[in-house]
Amino acid sequence: MSSDHPIGVFDSGLGGLTVVSAIQKLLPDESIIYFGDTARVPYGNKSTDLIRGYSLEISDYLLNQNTKLLVVACNTASALALTTLKEHLDIPVIGVIEPGVRAALTATRNNRIGVIGTISTIQSNVYQKELRNQYEKISVFGQPCPLFVPLVEEGWVDDDITRRVAKIYLKDLNAQDIDTLILGCTHYPLLKSVLQETVLPGTILVDSAEVVTEEIRSILNDLNLKTSAEDTGTLSCYVSDLPARFEMVASRFLGDSIAHVSKIHL
Amino acid sequence: MSSDHPIGVFDSGLGGLTVVSAIQKLLPDESIIYFGDTARVPYGNKSTDLIRGYSLEISDYLLNQNTKLLVVACNTASALALTTLKEHLDIPVIGVIEPGVRAALTATRNNRIGVIGTISTIQSNVYQKELRNQYEKISVFGQPCPLFVPLVEEGWVDDDITRRVAKIYLKDLNAQDIDTLILGCTHYPLLKSVLQETVLPGTILVDSAEVVTEEIRSILNDLNLKTSAEDTGTLSCYVSDLPARFEMVASRFLGDSIAHVSKIHL
Repeated sequence: MSSDHPIGVFDSGLGGLTVVSAIQKLLPDESIIYFGDTARVPYGNKSTDLIRGYSLEISDYLLNQNTKLLVVACNTASALALTTLKEHLDIPVIGVIEPGVRAALTATRNNRIGVIGTISTIQSNVYQKELRNQYEKISVFGQPCPLFVPLVEEGWVDDDITRRVAKIYLKDLNAQDIDTLILGCTHYPLLKSVLQETVLPGTILVDSAEVVTEEIRSILNDLNLKTSAEDTGTLSCYVSDLPARFEMVASRFLGDSIAHVSKIHL
Repeated sequence: MSSDHPIGVFDSGLGGLTVVSAIQKLLPDESIIYFGDTARVPYGNKSTDLIRGYSLEISDYLLNQNTKLLVVACNTASALALTTLKEHLDIPVIGVIEPGVRAALTATRNNRIGVIGTISTIQSNVYQKELRNQYEKISVFGQPCPLFVPLVEEGWVDDDITRRVAKIYLKDLNAQDIDTLILGCTHYPLLKSVLQETVLPGTILVDSAEVVTEEIRSILNDLNLKTSAEDTGTLSCYVSDLPARFEMVASRFLGDSIAHVSKIHL
C-alpha cells in the first residue's frame, strides 16, 4: 500500500459526496475514488444482511483499485456493516458514526443529544449505543426523518415545505431540550440552514462530513499515509446506475459538475 | 396452464398492493401471488437496462410458480419493460399504462389529459406516446411527483404538507386546464382525496388499479382462464427484503394486515 494511492469513499447514493467535498477542502492533495451504489439506493429501508453484503461487495471493488483507506460515507452502512468491514479488510476503515459521536460529546454542555437519520439508522440504535458507550450518563433522543432525503434530492433545501417537515420531525427533540444535534445522514448537511432555524437557539449541529475528514487527516498522519503529491488530487466517480437527473443531483452535493463518472456493474 | 392457477402481480415495492386490493374486490375467487422487489425499490430513479433485467428476473420467478397471467403493477416497469416481457413470456402480460390510457381517453371531454408519476415514468414519455398513438389530437401534460411515494409511506395521506406539495406539483397541470388526470404510480390511489381537492373541479382521476382489474377480468373471460374455485382466493406475498416498518406500510395499501409474507432471494 502506497501513500500515493487514493482514498476510497462509498455511499448508497450521492449523499457521500458531501464527505468528498469536505476532503477536497481539507486535504486537497489527496486523490479520491468515490462509489455511489445508485442502483440499490436507498439503504435506509433495507435489512442488515443486505447492507452487509452490499458493503463487502463495494469494498472489494475499491480495494482492487488500490485504495489506502476506506471511508464508509453512509450512515446506514456505517451503522450496520462497519464491524464486518473492519474484520474483512486490512486497510483502515472509517465510518461516519464514531467521529460524529465524539464531536457531539465534545460539543454538548447539558449532555442531551439528538440524532436524526433514516428509519434504519435510528431503529438500529447505533448512535444511541455508541454515545452511551463513551459516556454512560448521556441522554440521547433519536428521530427518523424519511422525507429529508427526497426533499434534498428535489432541491427544496430552502423551502417552506421543508421548514414545516423539519418542524414536525424536530418537535420532540426540541421538547427534550437537546443542545447538540447529530446530522446522521450524509444528505442532511444540505439542510443545515433550515435545521439551524428549527432547533432551539444555541443548539450545535454536528456535520459528520466535516468530523470524518478530521479523522481521515489524523489517521493518514499517524500511519504515514499522507500523499507525497503536491498537485491537487483527482476525483474518480463510479456508480452502479446512471439515473435520470444524476448530474443535477450530484452538483447539489459537490458544488460543481462531476467531470468523469463511470457506471460499473459489480 | 390451468385456470385454477394464480394471477401473478409484481411491483418494485408495496404500491402494487393497491392492484391486489382491487382484484380481491372485483375477482374475489382468484388466487394471487404478489412479489414486491423491496430490496431494490424504488425503480423510479433507475435506468431502463436495470429495470428490464429486474423485471425478467421477477417474471421468471412468478412463472415458476405457475401463474396464469402476469400483472406488472408498477408504472416504471410497465413503462420500461413491458415490451421485453411480452416478447419473453408465453402467458398474457398486463401493464398499468395501456388500461389507464384507454380509461383516460374515455373520460376526457376536452382532450386535455394530465399524467403524474415518478421521474422515470414521466421522463420516459410512455403515457404521452401511448395517448397520442391512440388519439393523435390529444394534449398531454406530464408532471413528475417524486415526493408523493415517501409521503404515502410516511402515512401523511391526509395532511396539510401533502396538500401543499400537491398544490406545487399540480399547479402547471391545472393551468393547462386538464379535465382528466392519470395517477401514473400505484402509490397514488392513497392520495386520491388530496388530489381530488387539488385539481380543478370536475377533473376525473384515473386510478390504474381499478382499470387494470377490469382488464384482467376481460382477459380471463376471453381466454377461458377464470378460476373454477368458488372459495375466496388465497394471497401469497413474497418480497426480496423485509424492511423496517414493512407491515405498517403494507397495511396502508391492503387495508388489513398481510398474513403470510416470505422473503426470498432471486
